[in-house]
Amino acid sequence: MRDVFIAGIGSTVFGKHPERSLRDLGREACRAALDDCGIERAAITAGYCGNALAPALQGETTVGQNVFWEVGLAGIPVINTENACASGSTALHLGWQAVTAGFHDAVIVAGVEKSVMPKGTPLKIGMAELETQLGDIFPGFFALIAQKHMEQYGTTVEQLAQVSVKNHFNGTLNPYAQFQKPLTVEEVLASPMIADPITLYSCCPNSDGAAALVICDAATAKSLSTPAVRPAVRVAASVLTTGTYDAGRDITGWVAEERCATLAYEQAGLGPQDMDLIEVHDAFTISEIVHYEGLGLCPKGEGSRLISDGTTALNGATPVNPSGGLLSKGHPVGASGVAQIVEIVEQLRGTAGKRQVEGARVGLAQIMGGGKDTDVRASTIHVLRRE
Amino acid sequence: MRDVFIAGIGSTVFGKHPERSLRDLGREACRAALDDCGIERAAITAGYCGNALAPALQGETTVGQNVFWEVGLAGIPVINTENACASGSTALHLGWQAVTAGFHDAVIVAGVEKSVMPKGTPLKIGMAELETQLGDIFPGFFALIAQKHMEQYGTTVEQLAQVSVKNHFNGTLNPYAQFQKPLTVEEVLASPMIADPITLYSCCPNSDGAAALVICDAATAKSLSTPAVRPAVRVAASVLTTGTYDAGRDITGWVAEERCATLAYEQAGLGPQDMDLIEVHDAFTISEIVHYEGLGLCPKGEGSRLISDGTTALNGATPVNPSGGLLSKGHPVGASGVAQIVEIVEQLRGTAGKRQVEGARVGLAQIMGGGKDTDVRASTIHVLRRE
Repeated sequence: MRDVFIAGIGSTVFGKHPERSLRDLGREACRAALDDCGIERAAITAGYCGNALAPALQGETTVGQNVFWEVGLAGIPVINTENACASGSTALHLGWQAVTAGFHDAVIVAGVEKSVMPKGTPLKIGMAELETQLGDIFPGFFALIAQKHMEQYGTTVEQLAQVSVKNHFNGTLNPYAQFQKPLTVEEVLASPMIADPITLYSCCPNSDGAAALVICDAATAKSLSTPAVRPAVRVAASVLTTGTYDAGRDITGWVAEERCATLAYEQAGLGPQDMDLIEVHDAFTISEIVHYEGLGLCPKGEGSRLISDGTTALNGATPVNPSGGLLSKGHPVGASGVAQIVEIVEQLRGTAGKRQVEGARVGLAQIMGGGKDTDVRASTIHVLRRE
Repeated sequence: MRDVFIAGIGSTVFGKHPERSLRDLGREACRAALDDCGIERAAITAGYCGNALAPALQGETTVGQNVFWEVGLAGIPVINTENACASGSTALHLGWQAVTAGFHDAVIVAGVEKSVMPKGTPLKIGMAELETQLGDIFPGFFALIAQKHMEQYGTTVEQLAQVSVKNHFNGTLNPYAQFQKPLTVEEVLASPMIADPITLYSCCPNSDGAAALVICDAATAKSLSTPAVRPAVRVAASVLTTGTYDAGRDITGWVAEERCATLAYEQAGLGPQDMDLIEVHDAFTISEIVHYEGLGLCPKGEGSRLISDGTTALNGATPVNPSGGLLSKGHPVGASGVAQIVEIVEQLRGTAGKRQVEGARVGLAQIMGGGKDTDVRASTIHVLRRE
């Protein structure tokens, strides 16, 4: 299997874009990624697009074809993937497989989504199961996780709020973030209660946006002479797992995520202690704390310590979500997994501006799809390394 | 790259199944495919699911996870793909890539769909573009293709009707077909006009159904001792192409399909003359005639001859759609591409009953997604060979 490099990155600003189409957002991100590395259109021989909600919300299918045509990438095989919040990272995983196995030398990977909906529209993911119809929607389920984590491990509402404060602070340093406003613990706690203990500012927003990558083999990466692709960023691990249907499980963790982390560290030949920065799927404040544990940054139950003692702050030992995360940067569902990679590449290149993690050489991105009614439906982890 | 074999096949009866869920249909097909080859659940290490319309019609996402869990396949990475009518065949293409490249030794591939909708519901695929809103829906566009083919090449409405007659006859021999009733040319021509010259019986129906495959490498295929998997059926070619956005093209053919055929014949080391049977995407009667030409069964413009002279009849030199095709077997969108493979494997095993093509050793399946407003969005061709 061949080494795979992230050559080009691109992203739109995340936020509310009611006037823009999926194609319009996708075009901006893809064009940016192509321009970023200066690759010729003809060198891109396949396209992978992650999207979760366009068929349901916009009545649009074959989204990848629609987007890639917009940037002149026509006549290449296009794969559309859906894996809930991990749709974009699944597209990357497939693109990585294709390049590492030698089916293609260079491919484009995009994540696009318009998930801002009229107020009151329920967001349905996964089966339209009975529990959902009875009100067990995402904020409710993550509130249960938070309650359980507080009861079992002593995590406090203040610690949960600190996650939002940290990520919103980071977001103020990211021009691509949906929210550019710092928050205090008091403000997070005083915001409207959604599902105790989850308040409004403990939830990521619905967002519109797109992100894109050009990935390629070593020879192609070498042939690209633009300064942006120096230093080269290599994909050290790409892993996708799905959980089991296990209603009796401990809801304060996801078995499939822990397995995914083990496999990713093995593939990369690295451990959690080697990560200079991490982007995790902070759909809710409690999610980030559970992911600390799932990724092995600390023993089970001790996640809240990492937020309290500043370990995961931008100037901490292991900054988590320097981009602002989903909480502040926003969460255009199918785009988020690709946007995490854009952030890590910026950091490894040393071009992350005011939120730069000094000397970053290795970064990890974790995102998952589903995980409410069962163990997680899709867990992906990518480890990137500056060569 | 390693040889890939189709070890297990399974399908539901196609038709109207208002009382059955996607999971229920998928379970039946997957269980049949697993039982067919007698593989142990633990040997299946990934799942690929093609579905086109569940998010839009049923509000359901991560369909593959939902289906595979139903047959005890939990904890394996699951990929959901959407490529309009080629969703299922795209899932097979990805599964084939994974096995041939060595990422997995054995995977399950499923196509599932419930596309029967309340009367009058428009079927939207692709962009919600202006032309669609103005009435340029599929039957209308294929009527334009038919008109152009009649004008340029002298194809007659009787010849178009003969395609439907042939496929409905074949359908009467297939217990999995939605329609089990023979039709005459007169009946096809006298059925309600949808878009001149396309009558009701010139269109495939909306259908519910599922089909599934177990595919694996040579060592795994060898280890399966069930009689069903003898003789072994090898995937001799698997190709996916996407067309360009070219409004000025000749609408009586799809450039991407012709390229797809060239690549598939190259990969298989075979030509159209070597095919003992073929399954094509006969969404409308005219489609089948255009596909004869796209696959190189005859020169451009001469497709109608192959239906008139009986070449593509069940007892002809190159039987096309022995299963009954989409016109008679039905068209559960994301499942159709997988069901074509089920039919070809039955034929190559010699277990196709009354519709058996004697001594069949090589078969080809062609299906495409989109292709209305532009050249085709996804064209896939698979060539299977009895070893």
